[in-house]
Amino acid sequence: ESANVVIYGKLYPEIVYVRANGATEAGGRVSTLSSAAKAEEIDSHSEVNASNSRLGFRGTEDLGNGYKAEFQIEQVVPVDTGGGELATRDSFVGLSGGFGRVRLGNIDTVYKSLGDTLSFLGVSSGNFVSNSSILSKSALGSGKTGSFHLRAPNSVLYESPEFGGLQLHAQYATDEAKTDERNPYLQSYGIEYRNGPLYLALAHEIHTDYFGGSRNARSSVSNVTAAPGANSRDTGTRATVRYKFGSSRVEVDYAVLKYKESDGVANGFKEYEQRAYAISAEHSIGNWTIAASYARASPEDCSLVGGRACSTSGLDGAQLNLGAGYSLSKRTSLFALVSRLNNGRSARYSNLAIGKPDAGADITQAALGISHSF
Amino acid sequence: ESANVVIYGKLYPEIVYVRANGATEAGGRVSTLSSAAKAEEIDSHSEVNASNSRLGFRGTEDLGNGYKAEFQIEQVVPVDTGGGELATRDSFVGLSGGFGRVRLGNIDTVYKSLGDTLSFLGVSSGNFVSNSSILSKSALGSGKTGSFHLRAPNSVLYESPEFGGLQLHAQYATDEAKTDERNPYLQSYGIEYRNGPLYLALAHEIHTDYFGGSRNARSSVSNVTAAPGANSRDTGTRATVRYKFGSSRVEVDYAVLKYKESDGVANGFKEYEQRAYAISAEHSIGNWTIAASYARASPEDCSLVGGRACSTSGLDGAQLNLGAGYSLSKRTSLFALVSRLNNGRSARYSNLAIGKPDAGADITQAALGISHSF
Amino acid sequence: ESANVVIYGKLYPEIVYVRANGATEAGGRVSTLSSAAKAEEIDSHSEVNASNSRLGFRGTEDLGNGYKAEFQIEQVVPVDTGGGELATRDSFVGLSGGFGRVRLGNIDTVYKSLGDTLSFLGVSSGNFVSNSSILSKSALGSGKTGSFHLRAPNSVLYESPEFGGLQLHAQYATDEAKTDERNPYLQSYGIEYRNGPLYLALAHEIHTDYFGGSRNARSSVSNVTAAPGANSRDTGTRATVRYKFGSSRVEVDYAVLKYKESDGVANGFKEYEQRAYAISAEHSIGNWTIAASYARASPEDCSLVGGRACSTSGLDGAQLNLGAGYSLSKRTSLFALVSRLNNGRSARYSNLAIGKPDAGADITQAALGISHSF
Repeated sequence: ESANVVIYGKLYPEIVYVRANGATEAGGRVSTLSSAAKAEEIDSHSEVNASNSRLGFRGTEDLGNGYKAEFQIEQVVPVDTGGGELATRDSFVGLSGGFGRVRLGNIDTVYKSLGDTLSFLGVSSGNFVSNSSILSKSALGSGKTGSFHLRAPNSVLYESPEFGGLQLHAQYATDEAKTDERNPYLQSYGIEYRNGPLYLALAHEIHTDYFGGSRNARSSVSNVTAAPGANSRDTGTRATVRYKFGSSRVEVDYAVLKYKESDGVANGFKEYEQRAYAISAEHSIGNWTIAASYARASPEDCSLVGGRACSTSGLDGAQLNLGAGYSLSKRTSLFALVSRLNNGRSARYSNLAIGKPDAGADITQAALGISHSF
Repeated sequence: ESANVVIYGKLYPEIVYVRANGATEAGGRVSTLSSAAKAEEIDSHSEVNASNSRLGFRGTEDLGNGYKAEFQIEQVVPVDTGGGELATRDSFVGLSGGFGRVRLGNIDTVYKSLGDTLSFLGVSSGNFVSNSSILSKSALGSGKTGSFHLRAPNSVLYESPEFGGLQLHAQYATDEAKTDERNPYLQSYGIEYRNGPLYLALAHEIHTDYFGGSRNARSSVSNVTAAPGANSRDTGTRATVRYKFGSSRVEVDYAVLKYKESDGVANGFKEYEQRAYAISAEHSIGNWTIAASYARASPEDCSLVGGRACSTSGLDGAQLNLGAGYSLSKRTSLFALVSRLNNGRSARYSNLAIGKPDAGADITQAALGISHSF
Repeated sequence: ESANVVIYGKLYPEIVYVRANGATEAGGRVSTLSSAAKAEEIDSHSEVNASNSRLGFRGTEDLGNGYKAEFQIEQVVPVDTGGGELATRDSFVGLSGGFGRVRLGNIDTVYKSLGDTLSFLGVSSGNFVSNSSILSKSALGSGKTGSFHLRAPNSVLYESPEFGGLQLHAQYATDEAKTDERNPYLQSYGIEYRNGPLYLALAHEIHTDYFGGSRNARSSVSNVTAAPGANSRDTGTRATVRYKFGSSRVEVDYAVLKYKESDGVANGFKEYEQRAYAISAEHSIGNWTIAASYARASPEDCSLVGGRACSTSGLDGAQLNLGAGYSLSKRTSLFALVSRLNNGRSARYSNLAIGKPDAGADITQAALGISHSF
């Protein structure tokens, strides 16, 4: 029976130097939506991290007539500290054929999969060099409810066949937590186009009743419990262009995130919007690969219930990543990474593996690691 | 070394429609043993469930002279949500030979293994179509302590050799939680007979100091903490007949569950008994298989310490399951399931994957899924 | 890809008889550092335990020029009860070549690896017959912070090439929990020498800011929170001699553990030192192997901040283990074990799988089990 199963994985532990300083002074003025600043810094120290190091089991079965069944059980393996449960990464059963491909399980959203595809030296998943910290998270806080960089449990995902390079994707995921008042669920849609060196993608994701605004904003504006009748609808929209020429690859992403809530409490959260872009490039020379990326997010607008003034001042953030990798083989490489994430005085963008930055804290990280695939 | 290990598994995620309504009015009259009704219903909603989807590692070693060593490490893999730890399903080391087979580990009870064997389209394990919700659980509540559908940690299990179709099974499992007053442990015994298309089995299980009565009954009659000197002895007894003719299989199960406690508090729990039966049938036509099962439980009697009156009124339950499966291959099939579980006004039988029904609530579920073995 | 991965493991479940009695009378006089005695005993009872039963995935890759990459993901599998997460045993990525070997991950300390190497019938890991309970733990309590028998998360480990039988080892592991005042981390060093039947090893381990003294001592002398400016430096030093002649193997270990804290609170913990030795022997006759080991620890000295009198009276412990194994094959054996651990009236040495002994309680255990490797 083992003939049906492939064991695979990738481990990429690294030694990391971390520091977060320059936090906004305690009680300093921050945007209307931000929690109060406490001037908390993170002393320079070392960590050993393992990002999304993983182990998986997968297989496919030919059903005849062009039909195919497939399964995958993949898990994060924290080789640095131990721990971790089963099926914590993309895990599913799928069926494909002339109609396309349907999968049922715990699966990365279409939105996450189609954009920010240039994985920085192959190690950006779960690593501090991921652009997602700026491109797909809220300036108000890095909590999951406000994130558009998600793996969605309880997913049904459909992918169309390819039509002349075009492919459509659609996903529905329930939170299984429907009440009389609220029904949290996720929809994620995308279209991609591939033509030789060119890759284009457009993705749109809708979070119903996730309250990504209220849950990350300062508690005094939160509608989550204060307004039992409130509902939310948060959306992310992103365009991606990637191009390969020679041994270089370049990608540009542009994203708009909107957090909207209805029937909120007086002076409560109503709407917040931010825009972000990321530019990534990778170039290979012999066994070496060098990579750089820059991501920047800016607040667009915010409003409160009843029209009270809402300031987005200081809710901007930017991140610069530089790295170099040296291939020891097709499966094994050494890598060095440096990153600087700057938070505006009200912002809490975070690429920390441990802990959270206070408002305005700027994060510096550097790492040396080894990546091994099997 | 890998030659010693077989990787195997079965994943069967499904999209489920769920609803529980008709709960007994809040404060309405229920049986003496039942917790007060609160009229709580569960709104119709959708879930993605994965039942007992699993991944396992196993192997056998020929020791010569007819002796064999074996091991199995099997775990539930919630492909719908991720999560799950190791060895959460049958996991053991065993030794077999002329004397029979002995296993040491975390193993399904003999009682569970010998009855309700006609796995509804191969997907009843952990699924809402399992008859066990009625046949092997208490009407007072679906808690583990009152269940006779258990995997027993810390088990020693012996199976005799076959004598003319007859085989004996005996299991002992300690709770490792002995105190001066209480010593919770489990014993499970069974005998099975196989002869061509016929399968007969009789099983008996004893739970010492599990307090399956007190722990599921209304708190005012509980002896668990109120009577430190109290002890309990709960038993299940079940007969099973299965017959195969042509491409049809039929099974009938009849079970008696008794919950008894001694030295309880005044007016405390003393005894509760219920009886149940289940009828299951499966029929194959080409790639199609259709299945139906019906299970029904009725209270028999109850009594309290000191002879106070004890009513079992409304502690009955019944469940009807219908399903169809379509085989895409030997390893892969699609399935559709419908189920209705009716609770008497005092009963809390449950086949919900998430949440618990209030007294009297009737549960309707329907599912579409895919089953893939590897 | 599976060709890159080897699945391996070892399961050794056992039925254990356990008792702890003779605890010091409640409120009885104990050493200055010991928590008050409560005369708590553990009634004789049975358990099923699985020690460090394990499942692993590993592989190596030849990189050419004598370089090699390797990975290992190994986990404890509690086949007795189920449960357990991923990478809970030695898990890492490594690179080796002419320079030696470097590994990054969750790895046993050098100190743990180089000593007490004669694994009692191959089942001492995590089992009550391990000498580590006496040789490498504090008499004050078996808590992790005072243990020199550790797997260290966030490790970087270097092993030198062999020079004429000599090999050096060095390890650094961060706790990732640095604050302004404290920086908990571990260093572990060792040198081993192998020459035919002879094995010699010397190991030294330093725990900075683990507070292995304060955290295991009675709370009134603890500096952990009472003296925010306090720091700690605990060390273990051990010499090991092992010799093989014919079908016998003998090992002697001698260890000194020191727990030191600076800038403690008045009358707080300042220093505690204990010394221990262990003698182990194993002898094979045909399919049988018999084993015996004896370990004994004695307090050396203690002191408190400000020079207040400190007594180490009753902080001694000793353990005797006897066992026999019968090989059914190279991979499978049956084993029987007996052990007696005696605690001095102030000591809390423990080899219990469940629970902790009270001061002075003596632990008796006996087991029958099966060991199966794959």
